[in-house]
Amino acid sequence: MSMSVWTIVVAAGSGARFGGLKQFEKLGDQRVVDWSIGTALGSSDGVVVVVPADALAKSILGEQVVFVGGGASRSASVRNGLAVVPHDASIVLVHDGARPFATAALFDRVVEMVRNGADGAIPGVAVTDTIKRVDGDGTITATVDRSDLRAAQTPQAFRAEALRAAYVIGSDATDDAAVVAAAGGRVVVVDGETDNRKITTPADLEWARQRVASL
Amino acid sequence: MSMSVWTIVVAAGSGARFGGLKQFEKLGDQRVVDWSIGTALGSSDGVVVVVPADALAKSILGEQVVFVGGGASRSASVRNGLAVVPHDASIVLVHDGARPFATAALFDRVVEMVRNGADGAIPGVAVTDTIKRVDGDGTITATVDRSDLRAAQTPQAFRAEALRAAYVIGSDATDDAAVVAAAGGRVVVVDGETDNRKITTPADLEWARQRVASL
Repeated sequence: MSMSVWTIVVAAGSGARFGGLKQFEKLGDQRVVDWSIGTALGSSDGVVVVVPADALAKSILGEQVVFVGGGASRSASVRNGLAVVPHDASIVLVHDGARPFATAALFDRVVEMVRNGADGAIPGVAVTDTIKRVDGDGTITATVDRSDLRAAQTPQAFRAEALRAAYVIGSDATDDAAVVAAAGGRVVVVDGETDNRKITTPADLEWARQRVASL
Repeated sequence: MSMSVWTIVVAAGSGARFGGLKQFEKLGDQRVVDWSIGTALGSSDGVVVVVPADALAKSILGEQVVFVGGGASRSASVRNGLAVVPHDASIVLVHDGARPFATAALFDRVVEMVRNGADGAIPGVAVTDTIKRVDGDGTITATVDRSDLRAAQTPQAFRAEALRAAYVIGSDATDDAAVVAAAGGRVVVVDGETDNRKITTPADLEWARQRVASL
């Protein structure tokens, strides 16, 4: 395949804010992470799922899906995933396991931008909250102009070489797009999706279950 | 009363993003706006509710609550509300009708900061999304440092004189804190509340109903 596409689904978090492994919570008749894996699989040639090391034995999804243990940080987990992506992959996506509702169309949009020459492409949505900048005492020093701001989502697609090079340089960023940009890559933002929320709190999971029940 | 406190509950929006008057949707055995009014009432000497002009006749809550019609913009609605706040009010709060879960403790926190000398005090929460700045082509130009950013909520409390003066100067800001700051006032941020979300989409209303059902 001339442009093989692999997705690393990062599901190795401990869920500190959630109070447990949110990625393995039931959502409809699957788990949260299975939704993320399912869409990734439909849009990629292969998927690497990074899971907590002690959960490694529990999941088998067939030979197109490779499981690997996570590291101590998000970037360590992505690095572990990247290590098992085949060398001939030309585009690598990184996707949060806890974003079950990213659509195939969104995967296609970010991949398309990389095929067309960007080093990376990520989904972003408008920032709707009013954002204030504060000093150390909590006094407001400015209202931030939101018009050119975007809240980043996943899946994030990268030219495989650019992502590998960025991670060779080494970095502990929580943000793959920043890693690639720091290494000199051009990363663009495409329109994200409102429902592509990250399941972070129990309230988010409730919302996701409601959404699935009404599908 | 030496420091009389009035709250303007702004519920005059047309709900364009929601597709209807979200503030009058049922939430438990009340409407969304009744939650907002109820908490405001417990924390203030009086409440002005700004509603769409054609909804004016529908709501009666007793003599501590005054209803007034809204204007064409949020700032016009706040101005209409401010016009009927008694002249001896010393602190005026502005609160979104579509934030049903702000607590009495939150009202107290912002009022306390104004009693202690600030011209204004607003609740703010940490920005958890990764925020990117983009140029006109959608290329990422920077990752925004989130550490000194806060997403603004309501209720926002102001020294009555400072708020009146700011609105006399005239402004069409969507953001009362910005109006007061632009007029030279010192506005501070106190810790907001995660559950103090603004009901903006049908999914938000679903979440709010779930939350009420589990209370």
